[in-house]
This record gives sequence, C-alpha cells and structure tokens, in this order.
Amino acid sequence: MTTTTANRPITVAIDAMGGDNAPAAIVRGAQIAAKQGLCDIILVGRGSELRSILPAPQAHLRLAEASETIAMDAQPTQVRQMPDSSIMVGLQLVADGHADAFLSFGNTGAVMAASLLRLGRIPGVARPALGALFHNARGAPSLILDVGANAEVRPDYLCQFAAMGKAYFERVLHHRNPSVGLLNVGEESTKGAAVVQEAYELLTRQEPNFVGNVEGNALIRGKADVVVTDGFSGNIAVKVSEGVVERVMDELRKSIKQRLLYMAGAWLMRGAFESLRDQWDYSRVGSAPLFGINGAVLVGHGRADPEAVASGIRSAVGIVQSNVVEAIREAFAGAAEQESPPQRNPSFPRKREPTR
Amino acid sequence: MTTTTANRPITVAIDAMGGDNAPAAIVRGAQIAAKQGLCDIILVGRGSELRSILPAPQAHLRLAEASETIAMDAQPTQVRQMPDSSIMVGLQLVADGHADAFLSFGNTGAVMAASLLRLGRIPGVARPALGALFHNARGAPSLILDVGANAEVRPDYLCQFAAMGKAYFERVLHHRNPSVGLLNVGEESTKGAAVVQEAYELLTRQEPNFVGNVEGNALIRGKADVVVTDGFSGNIAVKVSEGVVERVMDELRKSIKQRLLYMAGAWLMRGAFESLRDQWDYSRVGSAPLFGINGAVLVGHGRADPEAVASGIRSAVGIVQSNVVEAIREAFAGAAEQESPPQRNPSFPRKREPTR
Repeated sequence: MTTTTANRPITVAIDAMGGDNAPAAIVRGAQIAAKQGLCDIILVGRGSELRSILPAPQAHLRLAEASETIAMDAQPTQVRQMPDSSIMVGLQLVADGHADAFLSFGNTGAVMAASLLRLGRIPGVARPALGALFHNARGAPSLILDVGANAEVRPDYLCQFAAMGKAYFERVLHHRNPSVGLLNVGEESTKGAAVVQEAYELLTRQEPNFVGNVEGNALIRGKADVVVTDGFSGNIAVKVSEGVVERVMDELRKSIKQRLLYMAGAWLMRGAFESLRDQWDYSRVGSAPLFGINGAVLVGHGRADPEAVASGIRSAVGIVQSNVVEAIREAFAGAAEQESPPQRNPSFPRKREPTR
Repeated sequence: MTTTTANRPITVAIDAMGGDNAPAAIVRGAQIAAKQGLCDIILVGRGSELRSILPAPQAHLRLAEASETIAMDAQPTQVRQMPDSSIMVGLQLVADGHADAFLSFGNTGAVMAASLLRLGRIPGVARPALGALFHNARGAPSLILDVGANAEVRPDYLCQFAAMGKAYFERVLHHRNPSVGLLNVGEESTKGAAVVQEAYELLTRQEPNFVGNVEGNALIRGKADVVVTDGFSGNIAVKVSEGVVERVMDELRKSIKQRLLYMAGAWLMRGAFESLRDQWDYSRVGSAPLFGINGAVLVGHGRADPEAVASGIRSAVGIVQSNVVEAIREAFAGAAEQESPPQRNPSFPRKREPTR
C-alpha cells in the first residue's frame, strides 16, 4: 500500500535524534506514518535508545545505526567532524540511493552544512534556502524563502531564491507566471538595508514577474506567490505568525469559558472553529524543503510532536513525488554552465565530498 | 477640559501631509481628538489644502504653514534640503517649545533624520529606535524595539535599545526589574548573524535581566518585557502579526456566513469577539515613540484612518504625561559623560543644529 517511485516504495530517512522531543516523538511519529503505509521509513540514530522506545518490529519501519548526535547549539562547521552523526548518516543514505529523502527536526544550520557535504548543491545554485509554504488570505499557496538556512544573504542569492521558488510553482504546482516579491519594511525601492535595496534593483532588471516590495501584512495577504528574504527575517515572520495564531485561539478559548452564553454560541459554531484550526495548525504543516540541495532534504519544527512528525513525513513524500529537485535542476541548467566563482564564505564547501 | 502640563494644555504638532490618506484622514483624526478635548493640536502642512478640508475654525485646533512635503520614498538625507517641510516645521515647533510632542504618519526614516537635526539625541544615546508596545499572551505589556528606524544595527545599539526599553518599563510603567530578550531564530547563543551573536555576548555581560534569545512565537507569548532587534526584523514582526490577525478575523467572518447555525452561534458570542477585536485592533494602537530623541516624537502607521489618527494623538499625550524622554535622559546620564567617539554613519548628525 506504500506510494511507489518507479518500482520500489518511496523511502524516507529520518534523523531520530534531532528535535526538542527526540527521540521519543520522532519514533512515535514514524510509527504513525508507517502504519498509514505512506512510505518506507528508516529511523537513523542510536539503536539501543531507539529499540527501547520501539520494542517490536513494524512493517515499513527499520533502523540505521548512527553513534553521534549533533546538538541544537552546534555550529554548522562541526558536522564535518561528526561523520557518524544521525544527520550525516541519514544524508549518506540518500547519497547512496538507499533513501529518496532525508528529514530532520534538529539543527537547521547543521542539516544545511551536512547536506552540502553529502549531497552538494544543484549546479548553478550559490546557496540553498529553506522554503515555507502557507495559505495566504486569497486562499492560494504562497512560498517564503529563506526561513532559516542563511542568516545573511547577498542580492544575487535573493534572485536565486526567487528562481527556485518560481520553479516550484511552475513545475510542481503547475502555476503559470508566479509573481515574485521582496520582503521589506515599505513599498518604496529606497527601503531596507543596502543588500535589500540592491536586491530590489537586481530583481527589477532580471525578474519579469517582480511585483516589488512586500511588507509583513502584504505577505499574509498574498501580494506575491514567491516572497524572498534572508533566513533571519523569514524565520521571524513564520514564527511570529505561529505565535499570533496560537494567541488568538487561546484568547478566544478563554473568553468563551467566561460565560455560558458564549459557550453555547461556540458549540453552535464549532464547525467554523475547526475549519479555522485546520488551516492554521502548524503541526499539520510538517516540514519545509531545503531548496537548492542536490537531493530531497526537509527540515521540520524542533517542537514537533508525533502528529507533526508524521505530517513532516507526508511532506517529504510529496516533495519526492513532485520531483522538486529535478525542477530546480532544469531551471538552473543555463546558470550551471557559467557557474559562479568561489563564494565568500569558505565554511560551506561547494563540492560534493567523497562519501565515507 | 484639556490635559495640562504645568500650567498650559499639552500641545501636539501633527504632520498633516504624511501618510497614505493624508491630508484628509489626518485632519479628520485631529478633529476627533480636538473635539474630545484631549490636548491642543497644531496641524502642520499646506494651509490652502488643509483649510479646504477644515473650513470652520475648531477649538483646540490650529494650523501651522509648511510649504513642502517629504515623499514616502524620500531618502532620510533629503530632509536637510527641505527645512520648510511639514516634518521639519513640526519638529521645530517642539524645539522652540510651542508644542510638547510631534506626531507623523509619514516617512519613518525622514522623521528619524529630521528629529536628529531639529531635536538631537538624548546625550549618551548612539541611535534612537522606534518602539512598539503590545499586549503579550500573559496579558501584560511587551515592548519591541527597533521596529523601523534603523535598517541595520551594531551590537552596542541593541544594548542601548534594551536600556531605553527598561527605562520605559521602570519609570513609566513602574515595573520593577523588566526582563530583556534578543529577537533571534533559535534559543542558542550561536544563532543569527555575527551582529546578533555579538549582541548576545554583550547583553550576557552587561544586562543582569537578560533572559536570552526570544524566537518569533516566544515574542508573542511574552517571554521578555523588552525585546530588542534591528529595525528591519522588528518591522516585519509587527506587520506580520497585524496581517495574521486581519486574516484570522476575516476567515472567521467568512465561515460564520456559510451557515445559519454559525451565524446564530456568533451572535450569542458577539461579546467575546468584540473583546478579542479590541485587543488586536491595530487602529487602536495609534503611534509608537522614537526612543532616544531629545523630545517626544511619535510615528504612526501610514495606513491610519481618522480613528487611528485620533488614537495616535492619545498615545502622544500619554508619552508627554509619562515623561519618557526625561526617564531615558536619567537612565543615560552616566553614559553621556563618557560619550562615545564619532559614529560610523556620517549621514546622521549627532549634534543639534542651530534652529532656522
């Protein structure tokens, strides 16, 4: 009953040791997904620990041994010294063709660095970016990237993020002419730091579907299909929206409890509340792909509970099925031929290393 | 019936020409506030235009002529060449003691630059910051700064933002030991760009009430009383939260209309919805003070309608009454004696210029 790619089922390797509630929440989430028969799952981590949580064998679920764990506060550069970490071993499974995607709820920076080491970039892509898909106020999908892989960016990185986002819309969502916006503090081209102003100019010249700056509220309203920004601001935007929704729901719950009349009203309209919750529940978002890596790599929220982990696995299956990596590879085929000179940041290797 | 400071009523000078709906929305808002007798108001702008909107004289409301208007896309450096602009003239009224506060719904960068020219910094403050006060999930106030005055910051600026925010909590809200947090993409000290990591170290050393990094969702939950960040990320955080609230309310409204049952339920619990709207309605927030300027200067949302303008005027009166400027002056009295060497950015003069 598992989804298949070519002749064998899709296989997702999961970092069982990463995340606030790891390994228990990860194992439980994998069990939920395996039971649903979505795909084959390889839990990567310390076998002794994992077996204590998962005593009996389960269909579509197996373990892969990794003796080390990369801490949440580890520097990305440390991954090179930890080839037997759950992140490095999981990515190696993808590199060797034993898995179709790798998913982690751990240290985003470490996953990015390890992905560059084990899978490398798609030729032509300077820096991969973490993308987050959400439903905007028009009821349509919007994609914001980067939401956490690059604390700092250059103007040309932002243009590439736009190209990767467009490739996703055109080739995966079959959306013609997706619009591109630049997250900024005002509508005018003179807003933002120098990097942002230069990106505005570059996008104006290079991107025919550029609709200009997108402010925080316009991001939610869906002014653009693809919105590009640095990984710091993008992360703040995504987590603030999560916090606000949590708070609005919480306040509504509290005020409903204050009066019997409100409780009666809330009971009558419980269906409306449920549909709202479904649209905004972050545990259902699952995980976000690292666009630009030469393989399917996804990162989920560190706070993920088992349901969110299962949802993250579903996202990974979707990314494999929709062939996002191939779509970006095709979009960058021209750029790859005139590959850029060495980047400024030597801590991120650009070439795929020999596998261990 | 106007609020008085010493022996005369509080007087607020308003930039009648700034904002998306200026001058009409500004004039109408001033009329609302003047009618309520909150304070005396001076509308600064082109007299001919203002008189066409406000044909009859009104108590507590008068005009001051300013022939020029600073556009929303003007560079901050342009204000020097426009001494007869509504922003420069309004600030001059404060500098000369004719008004107690200046309020603009226009170009934030221009207001910042003009404030530095006409009023200068509080001695010891390197860079002023725009602060936004909101109710966190604990039902208590939180202050985030900067939300738009500085696109880029240095680690020491962030420490000063923290000190200004603390002065506001301690001396205006009478809150003992306010906690300080740093907006970031994770809990760990290694997160964020170099500037943010250095700020983390500096705050750890210098700030006894530093509670560490605050992620976007923790900002809303109220992990810290004062949260510091650069003006770009802070602006994104505030506007995203505005957009999400708008969207949640909009969706709830839409789904309620789908069924008679939901409409009945919503009618029963209308009181609960009203209290929620009151807490989140951005038009009631009004305006945010520019902390660190040697005078009361406030900036409101460019989209302000007349009600929001009136609310902004109320905020200005509150800032004058609570004497925030004096509180920060006292907090920085020690720092002023060992005033820092010249700043890196020569486009923002540090000394008050001779008035025209």
